[in-house]
Amino acid sequence: MPPFIPPLADPSKTVSSLVAERALVSFPIEPLTQFLHGANLDPQRKIRNLLEQDPVFSNADKPFLSREKMYVRSLEKAAKLVEMRKKNNWSDEDMMRAMMMVGDSTPQFLHEALFIPTLRTQLSDEQQKIWLPKAVNYEIFGCYAQTELAHGSNLRKLETTATFIPETDEFEIDTPTINAMKWWPGALAQTSTHCAIYARLILHGKDYGVHPFLLQIRAPGTHAPMPNIEIGNLGNKIGFNTIDNGFMRVHKVRIPREQMMMRNSKVTREGVYVPAKNAKMNYSTMVAIRANIVKNAGYALGQALTIAIRYSMVRVQGGDRIPSQKGEELKIIDHGMQRFRLTTSLALSYAMLMTGRVMTDLHKRNLKNVVQGEVGLMAEVHATSSGLKALTSDLATAQMEDARRACGGHGYAWCGGIVDILTTTLQDVTVEGENTILHLQTSRWLLKTVLQAKKTNDLSMVPSGLRSALAGNHVIEDEKSTIVPGQPISGETLIAAFWHREARVLQEVVLQILKDGAGEEAMAKSQVQMVELSRTHGEGMLVRNFYEAIAQQEQVIRNEHKADPTKGYLPVLKMLCELHAIHRLIEQSGDFLEDGYVSRRQLNWCKDRRSQLIDLLRYEIIGLVDAFDISDNQLNSAIGRKDGRVYESLYEWAKYGMTIMEKGSQGGVLGFDEVMKDVLAEGRRLNGVATSKL
Amino acid sequence: MPPFIPPLADPSKTVSSLVAERALVSFPIEPLTQFLHGANLDPQRKIRNLLEQDPVFSNADKPFLSREKMYVRSLEKAAKLVEMRKKNNWSDEDMMRAMMMVGDSTPQFLHEALFIPTLRTQLSDEQQKIWLPKAVNYEIFGCYAQTELAHGSNLRKLETTATFIPETDEFEIDTPTINAMKWWPGALAQTSTHCAIYARLILHGKDYGVHPFLLQIRAPGTHAPMPNIEIGNLGNKIGFNTIDNGFMRVHKVRIPREQMMMRNSKVTREGVYVPAKNAKMNYSTMVAIRANIVKNAGYALGQALTIAIRYSMVRVQGGDRIPSQKGEELKIIDHGMQRFRLTTSLALSYAMLMTGRVMTDLHKRNLKNVVQGEVGLMAEVHATSSGLKALTSDLATAQMEDARRACGGHGYAWCGGIVDILTTTLQDVTVEGENTILHLQTSRWLLKTVLQAKKTNDLSMVPSGLRSALAGNHVIEDEKSTIVPGQPISGETLIAAFWHREARVLQEVVLQILKDGAGEEAMAKSQVQMVELSRTHGEGMLVRNFYEAIAQQEQVIRNEHKADPTKGYLPVLKMLCELHAIHRLIEQSGDFLEDGYVSRRQLNWCKDRRSQLIDLLRYEIIGLVDAFDISDNQLNSAIGRKDGRVYESLYEWAKYGMTIMEKGSQGGVLGFDEVMKDVLAEGRRLNGVATSKL
Repeated sequence: MPPFIPPLADPSKTVSSLVAERALVSFPIEPLTQFLHGANLDPQRKIRNLLEQDPVFSNADKPFLSREKMYVRSLEKAAKLVEMRKKNNWSDEDMMRAMMMVGDSTPQFLHEALFIPTLRTQLSDEQQKIWLPKAVNYEIFGCYAQTELAHGSNLRKLETTATFIPETDEFEIDTPTINAMKWWPGALAQTSTHCAIYARLILHGKDYGVHPFLLQIRAPGTHAPMPNIEIGNLGNKIGFNTIDNGFMRVHKVRIPREQMMMRNSKVTREGVYVPAKNAKMNYSTMVAIRANIVKNAGYALGQALTIAIRYSMVRVQGGDRIPSQKGEELKIIDHGMQRFRLTTSLALSYAMLMTGRVMTDLHKRNLKNVVQGEVGLMAEVHATSSGLKALTSDLATAQMEDARRACGGHGYAWCGGIVDILTTTLQDVTVEGENTILHLQTSRWLLKTVLQAKKTNDLSMVPSGLRSALAGNHVIEDEKSTIVPGQPISGETLIAAFWHREARVLQEVVLQILKDGAGEEAMAKSQVQMVELSRTHGEGMLVRNFYEAIAQQEQVIRNEHKADPTKGYLPVLKMLCELHAIHRLIEQSGDFLEDGYVSRRQLNWCKDRRSQLIDLLRYEIIGLVDAFDISDNQLNSAIGRKDGRVYESLYEWAKYGMTIMEKGSQGGVLGFDEVMKDVLAEGRRLNGVATSKL
Repeated sequence: MPPFIPPLADPSKTVSSLVAERALVSFPIEPLTQFLHGANLDPQRKIRNLLEQDPVFSNADKPFLSREKMYVRSLEKAAKLVEMRKKNNWSDEDMMRAMMMVGDSTPQFLHEALFIPTLRTQLSDEQQKIWLPKAVNYEIFGCYAQTELAHGSNLRKLETTATFIPETDEFEIDTPTINAMKWWPGALAQTSTHCAIYARLILHGKDYGVHPFLLQIRAPGTHAPMPNIEIGNLGNKIGFNTIDNGFMRVHKVRIPREQMMMRNSKVTREGVYVPAKNAKMNYSTMVAIRANIVKNAGYALGQALTIAIRYSMVRVQGGDRIPSQKGEELKIIDHGMQRFRLTTSLALSYAMLMTGRVMTDLHKRNLKNVVQGEVGLMAEVHATSSGLKALTSDLATAQMEDARRACGGHGYAWCGGIVDILTTTLQDVTVEGENTILHLQTSRWLLKTVLQAKKTNDLSMVPSGLRSALAGNHVIEDEKSTIVPGQPISGETLIAAFWHREARVLQEVVLQILKDGAGEEAMAKSQVQMVELSRTHGEGMLVRNFYEAIAQQEQVIRNEHKADPTKGYLPVLKMLCELHAIHRLIEQSGDFLEDGYVSRRQLNWCKDRRSQLIDLLRYEIIGLVDAFDISDNQLNSAIGRKDGRVYESLYEWAKYGMTIMEKGSQGGVLGFDEVMKDVLAEGRRLNGVATSKL
C-alpha cells in the first residue's frame, strides 16, 4: 500500500504566507463549514478520520498509475469500505458519505448509488426480497446498462430487445445489431456480475417500448462471462479511469419472466402487458442524479479553487519591476488577472452550492410525492433539473479548466490535483442527458407553459418574472434597470435584470416559433435560440437561489442561532453573491445592453463595482475555500495542500512516483534498454567514437 | 507491433451518408488542400505514404497504453525515423515533415526542433563544429532545461547558477535550492544524454543574468545519471504522456568553460564577460516556437473538427418527432445547435490557419534580419506573436473541447480521437510563456507605442486603425458601424468594427493608466483591462488576416493559375470568413453595443446573417475538413475516419484493445483475481449460499 506521501499537511509547518493570509480572514471558518455541510458534517468527518488512518485509502499513487492499476486500486478501496461498513455498522447514508470521503471514484459507486437504487425503485416488493440482500451483501455486483453504441439520449430508439417466450415463461434478451451493443456502462467491463439492462419489451410480436430487466452477466466463482454474452473494456478515457466502462453483446440469452423489473409496468404469465400507473416514474432516478450533478458541480469547482487559490498565495512570480516591490516578486494572487479569475470563479462555486441546496430540497419533496403516486411536480422538477444540470456542468468545468491554467505548468501535471477532478467532472456534460438536449427540455417546458398561458389567459403557471414576455412586443423594451452608478447593487435590482433578460429572450423565441407554426419543425428551426433561452433561465436561477439561500440563513442565524447575522461569514457571502450576479451580467453584457435595459454608464459602474468587490474579498478568499473542508487526501494535490508546502511536496511526490514507475526491460532506465541504447550506439559508430572510450 | 487497426479507411466501403455529403460539396477538394499546405503538400504525402506502410507507426495501440508504454512506443517511432532519414536521404525539412506525419508526439521532436536549433542559434561556429555532428547523428540526445520548480515565465528569477572557476577554466553548475531544480523539460527524465541548461552566470562573484550552457547529464553506454546529478520523472500529465517531462537537481557539477554557449555573450579565459551585440537575439528561438503554436492551433482545431464533423454526418439521434422525419432520426449535423457550434468553430480554424501564414512569413523575414544583426522588427514580432499565441491557444482549445463534447460519449473515450489532440494542445496555453503574461506583453507594446506617439505627435508607428484612440475622449463614440440590415456584410465594415472596438478599449486603458501615473504600478492596476486589450488586438488580427489571405489568393488564382477565382473554393472561404468575423462580433456583442457603435437592429441582422451563412455552408463543411488532408492514422479516431465506419471501428478497436490490456494476476479478469473474488465470496457466505452451488 502506498504511504500517505507527501505526509498530510501539518498545521505546525504551514508556510508563513498561508499563516499570514489566514490571519486576515474576517470570519471564523467553522460556522461557514457547518452551514455548507449541515448535518452531514460531523458524521462525514468521523468517517474521514477513520479512513485516513488506513493507507489503502492513500491516493498518493494515483498520479503515477496506468488505467489498469488505477482500477485495481479503486477496487481495493471499495473492498475495504465493504469491510468497514460491516465492522462499524454504517447506515446506507454513512456508506454514501464514506464513498464521498475516499476522494476517488470507484466502481462501487455505480453499484451503491445507481444499481441498488434502481432495484429499489424498479423491482416489485417480492422481487426486492430476493435481490436486495444479494446486492447489499455483495453476493452480486451490479451496473446500469442503458446507453448503446449508436444510441444515447434518445431512449425511444434503443435497439436491445427482450422478447417474451410464452412456452417457457422467459424473456430472451438480444443485441440485434452491432449498433445495439450496450456501450459505456460503468463497472460493466470487469466488476459486475449482474446488470439492470434496458431493452424493448416485445410481447407476441408487438413492441411495448423500453423497460428494465435484470440480467446475470458473469458466473459466480470464475467471473467468466455467461454463455452468449461478450463483454469488453473501452480503453483509456480522458478521465474517470478508475472505472471500467464496458461494452456488452448479448446473443439471445434467456432470463425468467420474473427478472423483468415489475414495480411499475408488468407482464403476466399469459404475456399480457400491464402498464405503469404513471410512465414518468421511471425518470425518477434520473432526476435524482441530475440534481446531484448540480450540487457536485459546485463542490468540484470548489475543490479546484481550493488548490488554485492556496497555490496562488504561495507561488510568487513577476511584478518585481513594480517599484514598491523592490525587486521582490508578487504572490500570484496579487496579480489582478489571477485574483479576478479565481475570485469570480469562487463566487460561481458558491452560487452553484446554494442552488444545489434548493434543487435537493425540491427533489426530496418530489420523490415523496412520486412514491405516493403524485406526479404534479415532476414536469417542473424534470425541466428545471435538466437545464440546470447542463448550465452548471458547463460553467463548472470551464472554470475548473481555467483554475487549472491559473496554476501554470503545475496545473498540467496530475500531481497538481486539478487534472483528476476536472477530467472526472467532464463526464457530467455528457452523461445523464447530453447538455444540449437537456437545455432543449427546459426550453420546451418554458415554451409550453407560456403558449398554454397565452391560449388560456391563465398566467398562474408562468413565473412572475416572465409574465411580461406575454405582453405585446414593446412592453419589455420600456423597462430600465435600476442600477445606480456609485452605489452597491441590490439583489432586487440584479434579480430583476436577469428576469428581464430572460423574458426578452423568451418573448423573441415565442414570437419566432409562433411565426413558424408552433410545431416540432418550428422548435427545430429555433434550436440555437432555445438553448440560449434555457441558459438564461439557469443563470437567473443561480442568482435568485444565491440570494434566497442567504436570506434564509439570515433568518436561521437570527432566530435559531440567536446570533447577529451582520457578523461572521454572512456579510462576506453577501459580497460574493453580489459579485456573482454582477460578473455574470458583465460576461453577457450584450444581452443586457441590446435593448437599452442597461446603459453604458450602468455597465461601467458594474465593472467598477466588480473590481471593488474583488478587492474587498481579497483577504476572505482563503477562508472561503478552507471552509469547503476538503482534506489533503481528498484533494490529492501537491500544490493545494493545506500547509502550503508546495515545492517540497512536488519533489517528494515525484521521488515517490519513481519508486513505482516501470523500469527498463534490463532493469535500467525505461526506454533506454528498449530503444535508445541502439540509437545512441549507432550515433557513436557514425561519429567514429571508439567503444573503448566509454 | 500493432496492426493498423481498424483497417485504414477504404474509399470503396465509405458509408452512404458520407458519400452523399461529399457529392454535394460545390468545389473540388484538392486545390484547397494545395492552397492550405502549399509546397509542403507533395513531400508530406510522399513521406506519409512511406510511414504508413510500417506498423511501427500505427497509432492504434495508443488509446490503451499506460504512460510508460506510450513513451517506449514513441521512442520506437523516433528510432525508426532516424533510420529512415538515413536510408531515404531526407533533408532537415523532410525530417521535420516526417515527425509531423507520425501523428504522435515523440521526445525526438524536442531534440530535433528545440535542442538542435538551440545549438545552431546559441553555439559559436567553432562550438557547432564539435557538437552539431554529435547531435545530428544521435551520438547525443538533448533537451532544453530552462523552467525551474518555482520559476517559470519570469526568466530573470531563475536560480540555477553557473559559477566561473578561474583556476580550472570551468563553470560549476549548481542547483542552490529545491526551488531551483529544473522542472518540466521534455525528454529530460529518461531520453536525454545532454541538455541546454539555463543558469545565472556568476563571474568573480558578480551575477550577469541567465545564459545557456551545455551539460552532459547521462553516461554513454549505461545511460546512468552523471555523478552529482539527480534526474526523475514527473508522473502522469493531463496529456503529452509520450514525452518524459523530468526534473533535475545538479550538485556543483563542473563543465569546461567552452560549454557555455558563446554565439552571443562570451566569457574569456580571464573570466571577462563579453556581452552579446543584442541581448534580444536569445529570444529568437522562442518567437519561432510561438509563431508555430499559432499555426498549429488552427491545424489542431481542424483535426478535432474533422472528427466531429464527419461523425455528425454519420451519427443519427433525435428529431424523430418532427413530422417530416416520419419517425426517422436526424443526422446530428442537422440539429441546429450542432451545426452552429461546429461551423463557427471551423471558421475559426481557418482564420487561425490564415493568420499562421502571415505570422510565419513575418518570422522568416525577422529571422533573416536577426541573423544579419538587424533587430528592428523584433519588438513588433515578439509582441504580436505573444498575444496571438495566447489568444489562439485559448480559442483553439476551447473549441476543441466543444467539438469533443459535440461527440457525446464517444468524444470522452480516447478512441474518439479528440482527447489526445486536445490534451496535447492544452499545454500550449502554458508553455513558451503563460497566456496571461503573453497578453500583457502585447498590451505593453501597444501602450508603449501609443504613449510614445502621444508624446512625440508622430503617429507613424501606430496602426492606422488605432489612431482614433489618440484623439479626445468623444471622437470614437461618434463612429457608427456601416452594417446594413438585409445585406451581406463587407470585409471593410467588419474590419472597421474590430478596429473601432480595439481603439475604444485602448483609449480607455490609456486614459486609466495615464490617470494612475503611467508607470508599472498603473499597469499592474489595470491588468484585467490590459489582457482584454491584447485579446481585442488578436481578434482583430484574425479577422484582418483572414480577409487579406483571401485577397492575396484571389490574385494568385487570377494571375498565376490563370483561373477564375469566383469558382472553386474561394467563394466558400469568403463565406467562412464573413461568418468568422460576424460570429466573433456577436460573441462579444457587449463591446460593440456599449458605445452605440452597433445598434440593436444591426446586431439582430448579424445574427440572421450568421444563420444564413451557416445554412449556405451546410453542404460545404465536409469538403472544408477533408481539405485538411489528415490521414486516418494521424487522426487516430474511430469516429472521425474518412470512410465513416464509426460503429464497426469502435467495436473492432475495443476488441483489439482487449488483446493488449493487462490480465488479472491469476490470468482471469483484471480486478477479479486481485480483489473482487474475495468480496463476492464473502457476499455469498453472508447470504448463506453454499459453495457447492457454484
